[in-house]
Amino acid sequence: MALKKVVVGIDIGGTNTVFGFVDREGNIIAEDRINTSRYDKADAYVAALYDKIMSVFRKIESEAEIIGFGIGAPMGNINKGTIEYSANLPWKGIIPLADLFNRYTSLPVVVTNDGNAAAVGEMIYGGAKGMKNFVVITLGTGLGSGFVVNGRLVYGHDGFAGELGHTSVRLDASNRECGCGKKGCLETYVSATGLKRNFLKIMADSNQPSELRKLSFEELDAELIHKEARKGDCLAKEAFEYTGMILGVKLADVVAHTNPEAIFLFGGLAKAKELIFEPAKKSMEENLLSIYRGKVKLLPSELSTQNAAVLGASSLIWSIKES
Amino acid sequence: MALKKVVVGIDIGGTNTVFGFVDREGNIIAEDRINTSRYDKADAYVAALYDKIMSVFRKIESEAEIIGFGIGAPMGNINKGTIEYSANLPWKGIIPLADLFNRYTSLPVVVTNDGNAAAVGEMIYGGAKGMKNFVVITLGTGLGSGFVVNGRLVYGHDGFAGELGHTSVRLDASNRECGCGKKGCLETYVSATGLKRNFLKIMADSNQPSELRKLSFEELDAELIHKEARKGDCLAKEAFEYTGMILGVKLADVVAHTNPEAIFLFGGLAKAKELIFEPAKKSMEENLLSIYRGKVKLLPSELSTQNAAVLGASSLIWSIKES
Repeated sequence: MALKKVVVGIDIGGTNTVFGFVDREGNIIAEDRINTSRYDKADAYVAALYDKIMSVFRKIESEAEIIGFGIGAPMGNINKGTIEYSANLPWKGIIPLADLFNRYTSLPVVVTNDGNAAAVGEMIYGGAKGMKNFVVITLGTGLGSGFVVNGRLVYGHDGFAGELGHTSVRLDASNRECGCGKKGCLETYVSATGLKRNFLKIMADSNQPSELRKLSFEELDAELIHKEARKGDCLAKEAFEYTGMILGVKLADVVAHTNPEAIFLFGGLAKAKELIFEPAKKSMEENLLSIYRGKVKLLPSELSTQNAAVLGASSLIWSIKES
Repeated sequence: MALKKVVVGIDIGGTNTVFGFVDREGNIIAEDRINTSRYDKADAYVAALYDKIMSVFRKIESEAEIIGFGIGAPMGNINKGTIEYSANLPWKGIIPLADLFNRYTSLPVVVTNDGNAAAVGEMIYGGAKGMKNFVVITLGTGLGSGFVVNGRLVYGHDGFAGELGHTSVRLDASNRECGCGKKGCLETYVSATGLKRNFLKIMADSNQPSELRKLSFEELDAELIHKEARKGDCLAKEAFEYTGMILGVKLADVVAHTNPEAIFLFGGLAKAKELIFEPAKKSMEENLLSIYRGKVKLLPSELSTQNAAVLGASSLIWSIKES
């Protein structure tokens, strides 16, 4: 029997690194993880990670053959195979991640950021199959994104294209501080954290009663706000409307720039369904030039939240093999 | 002697249609024009235009061979070869321009808008030779633009990508009316007309003396404001600074989305050199995520204003032949 071709999809987070062996259909045949934060040197980390990957691979090597390594990481640069100045990982400066991997393997190693990985994942395994022009936006703690144009990921001259979270919401920088050092970035308004910040300001200005007035800033989160909005909490619903409105304004810019067939929303906030989709769609349409109106689909991602990061990372290799 | 290959570059404007026979180096071997507004039916217009092109061609046919027709037109759709709902041309609705041309010729006919034509022109004949990722912005009466990603024009799912002039400057639509029916579009602030509108508001708020206070709204134009700014007029200089600042904010979005190697400014306003480039660059840099800072070149177009539209239109054919 022929061996099944698999890609090792690796999702590097600040705490854990999760990896899985993924086939062309997006099935994860085996998976495991190591602790990222335990390694203060990148080369020791890669040595340990590669070792762990191989120890898991030995259990499936009678049926599977690895064809490459796809890696999603914060500030991953697809042009250079590096991680550059990530604030969330233990290693500072520019880490030549692909080169470190290639000490152990001559197979292709591709590195990119989570947003780009999600976009390619959607194209290979999800709702963007067959689409040539689309955008994926991941709404988690922050806001990640990836753009596909003419069937290819847009990575730009320096490898950092497809960024939406750190574009500005207001003409003059607002006073809302972003983790990146700027103020007023889109992700400070549109993300799980952004929703919470929006909610708090709306609550502060209003006299409407809300169960959420009992909770501290630290206790509050997007899931609780979602739950209360479902129960009819006016302030929670208003926070979703405001968040969606701001997202829509910036989506209109994305449409004008790249005229995609569809924009996919992925992650925690996207699970709030019409609470976020309806105001975002309305505001996007209002801000579009008439030639674009009613043409761009705003859709939920078809990747399951649980495996998306590993699937997205693995999809980079299939995408290269098939282009 | 072998015949020289030429492209017919055609620039369709509301008043005139200018065309030229352009060689690979961007030399215009012969040119002429017809009156656009005289033809209220598109098929009669194309018949007359083709006839005129052929009558000029007969003078050079001993030395030149036509390899295609590149057409720049307002609302030109590169996917479909159509002009769609242009407010500036005599023909309403969707005009199948390429099909109308193909009644007379079996050579390639490509149609796109002026901004996209300018972008490809910069790549084929101008300062973007060899660049794979860049953006061209044309600052005339309005603001046109074209994006090149991975060496190819971004035209998007519906053929209307690369649009910057009708993205919104403010979160809530300002009260500045745009010709497109929306409010607060970038071109209402950043264009020859935008500069004039900005200047008038600055003058209204200020008590500073200015020679331009003697002129009516209709008498004022961007060239006069430029001239006075050169003489030291504070209000005129402030109008350029404000215009550049707003341009820079939106350029930062462009950089985040597509991470270009360079952004080229073309047209009347770009001739104001440092008056527009300096505030635009400063504001762009201030609004960029640190990974992009200091990396993106903001450059003047290297196409001469006089022939740019015909050159840009002709470049579409060379670009296809060489891709």
